[in-house]
Amino acid sequence: MSTERHNNPQAEVRALLERWAQAIRDKNLNEAGACYAAAVLSFDLAPPLRRSGRERISADLGHWFATWDGPIGLEIHEPRLTLGDEVAFCTSLQRISGRKTDGELPDIWVRATLGLQKLDGAWRIVHEHASTPFYMDGSYRAAIDLEP
Amino acid sequence: MSTERHNNPQAEVRALLERWAQAIRDKNLNEAGACYAAAVLSFDLAPPLRRSGRERISADLGHWFATWDGPIGLEIHEPRLTLGDEVAFCTSLQRISGRKTDGELPDIWVRATLGLQKLDGAWRIVHEHASTPFYMDGSYRAAIDLEP
Repeated sequence: MSTERHNNPQAEVRALLERWAQAIRDKNLNEAGACYAAAVLSFDLAPPLRRSGRERISADLGHWFATWDGPIGLEIHEPRLTLGDEVAFCTSLQRISGRKTDGELPDIWVRATLGLQKLDGAWRIVHEHASTPFYMDGSYRAAIDLEP
Repeated sequence: MSTERHNNPQAEVRALLERWAQAIRDKNLNEAGACYAAAVLSFDLAPPLRRSGRERISADLGHWFATWDGPIGLEIHEPRLTLGDEVAFCTSLQRISGRKTDGELPDIWVRATLGLQKLDGAWRIVHEHASTPFYMDGSYRAAIDLEP
């Protein structure tokens, strides 16, 4: 897929975001990895606080893919793109579902922010932040039961 | 504070971020509110999944400020700014501490992403995403005990 040839930033960014989402659904590590900048910084659902670098993120993504039996359900809702000449970010609510290898059937909604930058002529993901809120009722439980 | 007069985007954005952080520390609702765009979208630590609009965010911030006895400790660590002409985002790890009115003494590290946009000549926060990860060991507890 060559998103770099034309000069329509919105189309280029949307193509990158769709390529990334489809790579996650397909558990295609090469395709997903190609969407990230070398110096990507990730704030992910699971600890630690942050991970840095495409190799590290790809390795962890590979481990995560291996915990799913079949494709990953990934729906992107309420996408909102704030687009500049060379920097952009996109927010969305993402519904993640499917069957894990241990038989669990997760179906959770998370908030996602993707930070994007045009590097050497191509848009890449330089930052990702995925989370759920948590209950401040003393339980400190992740709020994985919320729906929009 | 007039960050709009000169034309140094990095200085303007840093001034906005420092203004916002100091407003949180001081529990100064007017100052904090002035940092947000009218259409700000917030993914915050507590439910719900998302909040929209400066008035809603300011109202919730006011309720949150009222739960603290004295100033809020807010340290910004590992700030990373990705800056374009009119769009930028900044990531950091933030240490939040202090004394709550119920006597609790929280001291937690969170990941923060701020999405920024130049609107009518002035940089504003159009998106904020604050979170902790959560443990995927079956407990689904928010990981509020992590340190960088």
